[in-house]
Amino acid sequence: MSELVQDQDLIDQKWMKKAISLAKLGQYSTRPNPNVGCVIVKDDVVVGTGFHPKAGQPHAEVFAMREAGVLSQGATAYVTLEPCAHYGRTPPCAKGLVEAGVARVVVACPDPNPLVAGKGVQILRDAGIQVDVGICEDEAHQLNLGFLKAMATGMPYVRLKVASSLDGRTAMASGESKWITDTAARQDVQHFRATSAAVLTGISTVLADDPELNVRHLPEVDLATVVQPKRVILDRQGRLPLSAKILQNPETVMVMGPFRQELADLGVVQFPIQSLKSLLLTLAKEHQIYDVLVEAGATLSSAFLQENLVDEMISYVAPTFLGQSARAMFSVEFNTMAEQLRFKLVDVLQIGDDIRLKLIPSKETI
Amino acid sequence: MSELVQDQDLIDQKWMKKAISLAKLGQYSTRPNPNVGCVIVKDDVVVGTGFHPKAGQPHAEVFAMREAGVLSQGATAYVTLEPCAHYGRTPPCAKGLVEAGVARVVVACPDPNPLVAGKGVQILRDAGIQVDVGICEDEAHQLNLGFLKAMATGMPYVRLKVASSLDGRTAMASGESKWITDTAARQDVQHFRATSAAVLTGISTVLADDPELNVRHLPEVDLATVVQPKRVILDRQGRLPLSAKILQNPETVMVMGPFRQELADLGVVQFPIQSLKSLLLTLAKEHQIYDVLVEAGATLSSAFLQENLVDEMISYVAPTFLGQSARAMFSVEFNTMAEQLRFKLVDVLQIGDDIRLKLIPSKETI
Repeated sequence: MSELVQDQDLIDQKWMKKAISLAKLGQYSTRPNPNVGCVIVKDDVVVGTGFHPKAGQPHAEVFAMREAGVLSQGATAYVTLEPCAHYGRTPPCAKGLVEAGVARVVVACPDPNPLVAGKGVQILRDAGIQVDVGICEDEAHQLNLGFLKAMATGMPYVRLKVASSLDGRTAMASGESKWITDTAARQDVQHFRATSAAVLTGISTVLADDPELNVRHLPEVDLATVVQPKRVILDRQGRLPLSAKILQNPETVMVMGPFRQELADLGVVQFPIQSLKSLLLTLAKEHQIYDVLVEAGATLSSAFLQENLVDEMISYVAPTFLGQSARAMFSVEFNTMAEQLRFKLVDVLQIGDDIRLKLIPSKETI
Repeated sequence: MSELVQDQDLIDQKWMKKAISLAKLGQYSTRPNPNVGCVIVKDDVVVGTGFHPKAGQPHAEVFAMREAGVLSQGATAYVTLEPCAHYGRTPPCAKGLVEAGVARVVVACPDPNPLVAGKGVQILRDAGIQVDVGICEDEAHQLNLGFLKAMATGMPYVRLKVASSLDGRTAMASGESKWITDTAARQDVQHFRATSAAVLTGISTVLADDPELNVRHLPEVDLATVVQPKRVILDRQGRLPLSAKILQNPETVMVMGPFRQELADLGVVQFPIQSLKSLLLTLAKEHQIYDVLVEAGATLSSAFLQENLVDEMISYVAPTFLGQSARAMFSVEFNTMAEQLRFKLVDVLQIGDDIRLKLIPSKETI
């Protein structure tokens, strides 16, 4: 590779990273749309920036082009996701970039939707614009794990949140329990809720803790801009009490269980009993729920793991030992080491007096 | 505080940190002696440095004074531990500093031995030397956790090493087990062995794994300079087989159990059966073992914890789940949350694909 090409690569990465950080500004507010950022650069000077703030508002490229005005001509546009090629609420961004006269477009992630993939790039190339795809793709992919997975496979991205003691326990044998992790760790969960289209739990958790499972606090973020997650409850026996706190906002509640007229009257979306996988497919296909956070007890968490439905696990560990008779965090039973559920550690972070592990299933065993 | 005094404080810290990093050069080789470092500074220039390399060799101050020569006159000596006041293999360092003509001595940790404490400082002050004690004391204290604890209380510093899956298990119910943690984590343990005067284990571990419990590899360290730890085995029923690998170096093995002539013949030190606490006191008092690393199974590890004998726990956690029927890492049984063994997290580190937690008992519950 010549030095010149190498230099261009570094320059491209620099601007794409800027576009990625712009995209992140929409992380709590764009759902079900993806997070996208755009930077327009001319003669090594930024002439326009934009990000997609919210469904119904213009795409990142539109904001950037507006800011750049005539300076777009001959410029390079860096976009974290392949510009759209379809007419929606706005004309296709690919056409917009052509009209603005940019000379080159650099794309991080190709559009994963098989119906759209490549079409945006094609429009640009047909107009004689140089297009380079794949710059900082891994990093940009992280922006839209759910959207990209759902477009590619139909399934949402599933995060499983667990919290346990150092000896893998969640409560005493008697059922006695209280917060094991500290305030800071519980606070940290709010970020994952706020980046999820739905928080999914089991009826046992609702009956035991009466949780709200919504976003109540994010540091330095105006809660009014946050798209609150739907709350999905698995309730096979129809036991959800109408007095449950979670029903204070019934329009954001979804229940899988036997049909109940009183829930329908409240506006709760109901699903017939089906497999977890089928439910996840339904959530993605019919409700544009592409990121699911599972916050459940041992039984349901174990089921997600055993059915290989977990894309990522967020594990909070408190520095305490509850002893061998305390309740296990998972209700799976293995007889041999070969059956173990092995993960790959992505990162570990101290949060207050607890730790948070980010793990992904290890392909070796799952 | 005047600006001048503040500046002097920062200068003192700078040189004391240098003395501390010198002291660390002896971390694997000075036992049972403490790690000590010394820096002699004149007109803001280092004129002498030294550290204690090994029992039987000169103290840190002696090396530093030799290097400084006549430049010691009117200089400031930074020492991580109060200079000794007693005649041993070498004359007392406090007297040496007086004779060298230093004008000021800065000490991090006072000598914890009640028989010596303050005497070194007194000799210096009596000679008209300015002495300041306590600069970077916490950091310097970390150099000699065992020595300082033993001098102050008679008890060694006890580190408990544990390794488990994320759900707090160590083996399958059948007993099937293999390394849960990765090579890097097992490698990391070698450092803790090399800074311990003894590694303590139970006979069950010896019978199950036939371990050597010695130091076999330290990155960038000549193993010949490392003082190998004694290996202490708790064997209440006298089951240690003479074929055990650990007996290949019998002179470094100690056994607590019924007296066995064949062990005595090999040169193994034997202790009558006694409480863990009494054994620890004996190790410190009679064998100058001030740092003990416990590498044992669930039963013995739990006993150390329940008897409040653990000063620090090193917990390696592998990102895997072994399931609820797998063997628990501790064999303690608690009925209420109030009984939990709570720790304070000192730090967490990713090591290869595992994590290492450093924990100290939380005073709130232990």
